[in-house]
Amino acid sequence: MASEPLPRGGTIGILGGGQLGRMLAQAAAKLGFQTCVLAPEADSPAFAVSGSHIVAGYDDAEAFKALAARCDVVTFEFENVSAEALGILEGAVRIAPPRRALEVTQDRLLEKRFVDSLGLATAPWAPVDGAHALEDALASLVGQDGDSPMFLKLARQGYDGKGQLRIGGLSDLGKAQDWLGEKAAVLEKAVSFEIELSVIAVRAYGGAMAFYDVPRNTHRGGVLHESLVPAPVSDEIRSQARSYARQIAEALDYVGVIAVEMFLVREGGGPRLLVNEIAPRVHNSGHWTIEACAVSQFENHIRAVAGWPLGATDRHADARMVNLLGSDVDHALALLRENPARSLHLYGKREARAGRKMGHYVELTLLRDS
Amino acid sequence: MASEPLPRGGTIGILGGGQLGRMLAQAAAKLGFQTCVLAPEADSPAFAVSGSHIVAGYDDAEAFKALAARCDVVTFEFENVSAEALGILEGAVRIAPPRRALEVTQDRLLEKRFVDSLGLATAPWAPVDGAHALEDALASLVGQDGDSPMFLKLARQGYDGKGQLRIGGLSDLGKAQDWLGEKAAVLEKAVSFEIELSVIAVRAYGGAMAFYDVPRNTHRGGVLHESLVPAPVSDEIRSQARSYARQIAEALDYVGVIAVEMFLVREGGGPRLLVNEIAPRVHNSGHWTIEACAVSQFENHIRAVAGWPLGATDRHADARMVNLLGSDVDHALALLRENPARSLHLYGKREARAGRKMGHYVELTLLRDS
Repeated sequence: MASEPLPRGGTIGILGGGQLGRMLAQAAAKLGFQTCVLAPEADSPAFAVSGSHIVAGYDDAEAFKALAARCDVVTFEFENVSAEALGILEGAVRIAPPRRALEVTQDRLLEKRFVDSLGLATAPWAPVDGAHALEDALASLVGQDGDSPMFLKLARQGYDGKGQLRIGGLSDLGKAQDWLGEKAAVLEKAVSFEIELSVIAVRAYGGAMAFYDVPRNTHRGGVLHESLVPAPVSDEIRSQARSYARQIAEALDYVGVIAVEMFLVREGGGPRLLVNEIAPRVHNSGHWTIEACAVSQFENHIRAVAGWPLGATDRHADARMVNLLGSDVDHALALLRENPARSLHLYGKREARAGRKMGHYVELTLLRDS
Repeated sequence: MASEPLPRGGTIGILGGGQLGRMLAQAAAKLGFQTCVLAPEADSPAFAVSGSHIVAGYDDAEAFKALAARCDVVTFEFENVSAEALGILEGAVRIAPPRRALEVTQDRLLEKRFVDSLGLATAPWAPVDGAHALEDALASLVGQDGDSPMFLKLARQGYDGKGQLRIGGLSDLGKAQDWLGEKAAVLEKAVSFEIELSVIAVRAYGGAMAFYDVPRNTHRGGVLHESLVPAPVSDEIRSQARSYARQIAEALDYVGVIAVEMFLVREGGGPRLLVNEIAPRVHNSGHWTIEACAVSQFENHIRAVAGWPLGATDRHADARMVNLLGSDVDHALALLRENPARSLHLYGKREARAGRKMGHYVELTLLRDS
């Protein structure tokens, strides 16, 4: 894969204009790169911090060609980019992460099979090819009493708790069939985990990797609420988590930042990790790296896709990141008054719709020799 | 003075589009504000990170009116804004820092008189009202042998070592007269200082102030080369430096970040501080605050002018900032390879003209309890 470093002042294309694209564009600007963001909404948050942008749908072939023509490399804020779009881009410009990483992670079925193929543990799961196949899938996963909580997750377009249905077991079959219709899905046994973790790693063209410390993530209503680093886990678990992420990134010949969400479970024997989801991009659970690390996940993603040297991922502080959803943002000034050392990020979104990610804040606790 | 906080997503106007304007716009975006940058050059570095901009000269009254109409508050990247422009803006929109702060600091004569009026020490100086008045001014400052190094500084438009002439003493009278012509100037005795310091302080509408730690600044050819924090000075000197900055800011009823450059001299008795220059804006010697502090000078300036709560100015690390001038920028990748924890900022300027500020980098050394 091409690894010639982008020239100073080169142009990086970003597909997707939300807060991740915004923070990527800001990191690119810090290094003197130009950016061009492609997104469908005319008021996309990333547009306001990017030198140029293209308002276009993710199915607009002409727009992809225009983006490719303007950029030295194109990267992604999110994984739901059509195969056609990826084909157009890949034929015209360097893209990173690689096409296969997006294809595998945008389809839960492909992703589960990929993780299985690496021999990494996941929660017990079964493929579901539409409503008619659901009963067999349920039967294959439920316990002897027929009732066991499950998640039915659409194979495509799910994120932040969207596109999924929690079901109690066989008794919910009818409801689940109605919800699913003829769509493909993954049926996943709900595991009773101790904590949720994520690994944020970055991989360069040549294969060099660096890992941020592992946060503990707490979700509310399927959406990340808080990331706390360091997670309360042993060094062995931390090291196993990184090893899982390394295997995944290497198998995808990955370039850029990758996030792997995991569950820590304790069944019978000792604690062990299950891979939950792979995100081929910067990740909400890595926002604290802006404040707590010399080089943030956003900057390291930009460095990686630009073929520039990776930056240090060490923490100089413990950190806590809290998302501001919907009307939480109305308390922004009170949050600043309460703690002047709080670092606030607002994404410039006008409408504070319920559940919408409006911003986040980070609090640091300095490391001290003990 | 008005102190109602800007609404979330409000618009901040920035006069000046260089690297300071760029980093101000980035800090504003972090807090979810919109920005509009006014600058004369179509490729101004700040434009690429700002949602909107106006290409116009600093003497374009219509453009100032347009800027005022778009913004909730207007602030400044630099102090050389004409009285006319300030008048137009002040009549139409909230401005911060206040007009008087810009008027005093854009004219070295006014600035010296202002510092004198506060009873703060400066290097010995004399006003010079054009070439014909130079001989008397020189005579009033030179020592008995008639030769004493001096700086002749134009009253207006000087910065980064521009607009000034070093002269050996009376023997250089003719040369200095030719250089000066009929312009107004300040003649300043060159003092033999131990180190140069600066205080970066921020003041809110209500008068609350916060101070960053004092860096030691090293110049090369009149341009800042390195800022190192903490400066090797006693707590008494650090505290005296802050007190000087506080007196200056209070006398100007200042709002925003203000920088005061000082010399530490040791004459006869103990060490003492001389005020060198006041900059009514964020300052090159405060760039390290992005990496070493919870809230940077840029963000605190934005918070102050927006009427939002000031942020903490504590350092969580020692820091060293080095400017990249002209072709220094060609070594950017080598700098990153050499030290992966180096934080690099490039300003997106295309032409690396000799002496031009192209970027900077910051290195941190963590604080440890000893």
